[in-house]
Amino acid sequence: MTRVILGCSELLTLAGPMRPRAGEELRELAIIRDGAMRIHDGVIEWVGARRDADTSGAEILDAGGRVVMPGFVDAHTHPVFAGNRADEFEMRAEGATYQEIAAAGGGIRSTVRKTRAAGEYELRAAASRYVEWFLRNGTTTIEAKSGYGLSLQDELKLLSVTQTLTPLRVVPTFLGAHEVPDEYRGRRGEYLDLVIHEMLPRAAEIARFCDVFCEPRVFPVEDARRVLQAARARGLGLRMHADQLESGGGAHLAAELGAATADHLEHTDASGIAALERAGVQPVLLPGAVYALGSRRYPDARAMIAARLAVVIATDFNPGSSPTPSMPMILSLAATQMKMTPAEAITASTINAAFSLGLGREIGSLEPGKRADFVIHDCADHRELAYFFGIEPAYEVYIAGERVYSKHSAA
Amino acid sequence: MTRVILGCSELLTLAGPMRPRAGEELRELAIIRDGAMRIHDGVIEWVGARRDADTSGAEILDAGGRVVMPGFVDAHTHPVFAGNRADEFEMRAEGATYQEIAAAGGGIRSTVRKTRAAGEYELRAAASRYVEWFLRNGTTTIEAKSGYGLSLQDELKLLSVTQTLTPLRVVPTFLGAHEVPDEYRGRRGEYLDLVIHEMLPRAAEIARFCDVFCEPRVFPVEDARRVLQAARARGLGLRMHADQLESGGGAHLAAELGAATADHLEHTDASGIAALERAGVQPVLLPGAVYALGSRRYPDARAMIAARLAVVIATDFNPGSSPTPSMPMILSLAATQMKMTPAEAITASTINAAFSLGLGREIGSLEPGKRADFVIHDCADHRELAYFFGIEPAYEVYIAGERVYSKHSAA
Repeated sequence: MTRVILGCSELLTLAGPMRPRAGEELRELAIIRDGAMRIHDGVIEWVGARRDADTSGAEILDAGGRVVMPGFVDAHTHPVFAGNRADEFEMRAEGATYQEIAAAGGGIRSTVRKTRAAGEYELRAAASRYVEWFLRNGTTTIEAKSGYGLSLQDELKLLSVTQTLTPLRVVPTFLGAHEVPDEYRGRRGEYLDLVIHEMLPRAAEIARFCDVFCEPRVFPVEDARRVLQAARARGLGLRMHADQLESGGGAHLAAELGAATADHLEHTDASGIAALERAGVQPVLLPGAVYALGSRRYPDARAMIAARLAVVIATDFNPGSSPTPSMPMILSLAATQMKMTPAEAITASTINAAFSLGLGREIGSLEPGKRADFVIHDCADHRELAYFFGIEPAYEVYIAGERVYSKHSAA
Repeated sequence: MTRVILGCSELLTLAGPMRPRAGEELRELAIIRDGAMRIHDGVIEWVGARRDADTSGAEILDAGGRVVMPGFVDAHTHPVFAGNRADEFEMRAEGATYQEIAAAGGGIRSTVRKTRAAGEYELRAAASRYVEWFLRNGTTTIEAKSGYGLSLQDELKLLSVTQTLTPLRVVPTFLGAHEVPDEYRGRRGEYLDLVIHEMLPRAAEIARFCDVFCEPRVFPVEDARRVLQAARARGLGLRMHADQLESGGGAHLAAELGAATADHLEHTDASGIAALERAGVQPVLLPGAVYALGSRRYPDARAMIAARLAVVIATDFNPGSSPTPSMPMILSLAATQMKMTPAEAITASTINAAFSLGLGREIGSLEPGKRADFVIHDCADHRELAYFFGIEPAYEVYIAGERVYSKHSAA
């Protein structure tokens, strides 16, 4: 099956060097105005100006003067869980803090209790709603963490469900060290033994990455180091929740271990940023969690870009701190709250995100040889994606050249 | 045509006294679980428990276990304009302030130049895109301001276009005193003469309200008083942009004049709040503008609720400071940034908003005798409307009993 896409007011190719983009490169979207793209069997064959397009033997797809760009790559999500936490959200609006709710048995532990009680079928049904939301917002690949099971059986159940989130491309991450479960309260060391010796060997058969919630009051640096070293020994790539609620040396640990990413970084200082730069760790910034927690402390994206970090932005979709699946919303937050330009935010949510997942040669830009994962957005200027907010701008979404979502016809 | 709606997990009726709600009343949504509603010729006949529903001779509409509630009433929007300001948005991400851009001829004046150059057909086409966005987000009534014409002919053109935004219900507001147009720079008094003597008499034939952008550096209190007194003499209701960028006595003026609303109020202090309470002025809070301008100064909703003001929240949809048509997004901002509960935010965006427009007896709640303007949202718990963000939760939207939007079938 061969298709040629025409009628792109702007074709954002994101073509460039085969590495994550840093500094000024973040603003270079390699836009072709009135562009065209030829795809064959789900792979991009050719990209260029419409006047040069070879349409022979191809089905024509007219983008109608809209923006066409790579599907968003959401490099930090927690999409598999039971129930939601709208009740705790209401309590927070009434004045309770996230930490107070967690201390009272709410927060992650409340979702863990519900998720353990749920079967795979129920979790899949819940997740399928979120899959539709990701697609409606133009996301074609997600990283998907476990972390609401916190027992061998339940963590494997979650990782298994991440394998069923079609048609999204999914990169599974094992997050057994997300929180200490109720039955191990006061016995953190024993729980970490379980994570390392029982869960990791089995999780490594499915997951590509291992992540730890590294916070002084949850898993401090020495705990995170133990888990991540063990994960590395099993061949997993490393990601880390670092410096979200307090500054706890997370960025420095990510640098020390050569992690693929350090995520959150709300409290990372200049020395932490310098360490990430030296080690080539990509920061994954999650402004949705700052916003939804009602905090004013966003990570210092401008300092990170100035330091030539290859910044990534992601939704952190989860039922507690960031209940949004929308990458356009994250672009809006990046622009209005972190002073990233729309172009920087687009690079950070496509090609840079793809590299952070080890997929930079397969997805994240529209170049010959890459997978034809792309979105037609219902606007003529890519800046509108960050400018308007609260709407779902995707018009049609394609994964491997196949249409998986269309706004204008029945699902 | 008679219809009965069944299968409502929660039917948010907002039934209550025939006046705007204040204090604790804001949390009372009058929810019927497993509720039903009978409508005839666009008007609500009966609301109650499903087991008591009379379905004889009626077409059945199954909400499928979803939340059903009144359509949102968006009491502050600027929906008619040409072009957009994604370019200035990019400049702001790069560090320029809204005031700097305005001083350089951008901001409202840039939209005025484009809007003057556009014909009615072009403005209607642009607005029709936004009408679809409002519907997709569950809004059934909007207040629609002029204010991007700033000449007699162009203001009438805008007011005329507000009459064409079907199927939305529209309440037109004349906002000739939105900014001093280029040709009157340095001659503000002369421009106000034009507004009062030339524009107002004609605008009053279409508009139901008059609004002024009352800010010390735009139209200070004495200017605003002149315009609003003249408008009142012509029978128009009064609304006011007050205390948005600076504290300038706007709230006190609204109280002095007995305006229907004072809008924005980011810089209103306790004495201003007390004045609004004494005069029965409804505050219209616009957190989208605070968010999109990257400010941290939200209006003090909790103090206003404590003072028993009948709070309204609205999108302030406009191309400069608040490019969102989404009332669910405003619910999210109200909860996360202003600490309003989801229930308070829903009251503020339905029945209270309706009363602020003089429509409290016709729309804003689901009670016998009222218009059947309602939305089926794709969730089972109304708190999800404020909790999840960046998505469009509306599943089906009805105005006067007729379906005007459905997510699951072609538009």
